[in-house]
Amino acid sequence: MPARTKLSDTFCPLGRTAEFLGDRAVILILRELFFKSARFDAITRGTGLGPQLVSARLKMLEQHDVVERRPYQQRPLRYAYHLTPKGQDLFDILYVMRNWAEKWAYAPQEVEADYAVQYLHRGCGADVGTEIHCPQCGERLGFGTVKAVLSPALARERLAKQAV
Amino acid sequence: MPARTKLSDTFCPLGRTAEFLGDRAVILILRELFFKSARFDAITRGTGLGPQLVSARLKMLEQHDVVERRPYQQRPLRYAYHLTPKGQDLFDILYVMRNWAEKWAYAPQEVEADYAVQYLHRGCGADVGTEIHCPQCGERLGFGTVKAVLSPALARERLAKQAV
Repeated sequence: MPARTKLSDTFCPLGRTAEFLGDRAVILILRELFFKSARFDAITRGTGLGPQLVSARLKMLEQHDVVERRPYQQRPLRYAYHLTPKGQDLFDILYVMRNWAEKWAYAPQEVEADYAVQYLHRGCGADVGTEIHCPQCGERLGFGTVKAVLSPALARERLAKQAV
Repeated sequence: MPARTKLSDTFCPLGRTAEFLGDRAVILILRELFFKSARFDAITRGTGLGPQLVSARLKMLEQHDVVERRPYQQRPLRYAYHLTPKGQDLFDILYVMRNWAEKWAYAPQEVEADYAVQYLHRGCGADVGTEIHCPQCGERLGFGTVKAVLSPALARERLAKQAV
């Protein structure tokens, strides 16, 4: 009988996801990658994390086959980071994390728009709210199907980090 | 103008969720609470984490109003931990974390059943697969609507921890 590959010390699917996604820095780095910030400096600026931490986490994400590194410049050699198909599928998780926060993580007096991040469906333009399927055309939302529009407060915050 | 409540140092919804959910121990503790393991000892056994870590994270989750503590015994005084409505809504996140892992986190030779954790819809009995709406009756799946059936490998693992 073939030996069972030991991908993790647990057989629990949630435990396996938690193993690499149960880390604040990882979630923030993935956010930047979903926002198309592929270069190291942009990821560091957007997350506000130190370069050593970002570098270590990107390496770990490469090992998990969630991120791949590709050169974008030869002299000096510079790499950009891209989500693999396995990484792109994490969209579903990050999207519901955002949905939960939109409902629960803001005090009433903080709210100046319907959402801190509004998502528009690229296919038909509808505001998808916090739905999994586009409320206008019914398409299942996934990686690359929505465009983020930041609230004024969040846009100011990212501008202050020069990370819009 | 009223001062803005500083719930977090970021206005980003994903950042706010990441602030407490970007932690492996927190995700495992929440898993146990979704599995109805409400007592401290059961949570500790099921997660395999040390009691000090579990205690610190439960306290943090209470502060975030995700978990509430209620006495279940007076002499000696003992508490059980329960998800608040805000905590119950985290089901959506943990469910898609499981869905992602079912698709991506297992080597082919590890798989001995369709899913490491099969979810049956309590309403109609259907295997919901990794769908957000029940594929048989269409109900939107959420906290309390599904029953977990562990694969033999995962059931053995939990039995070894005396945490089934």
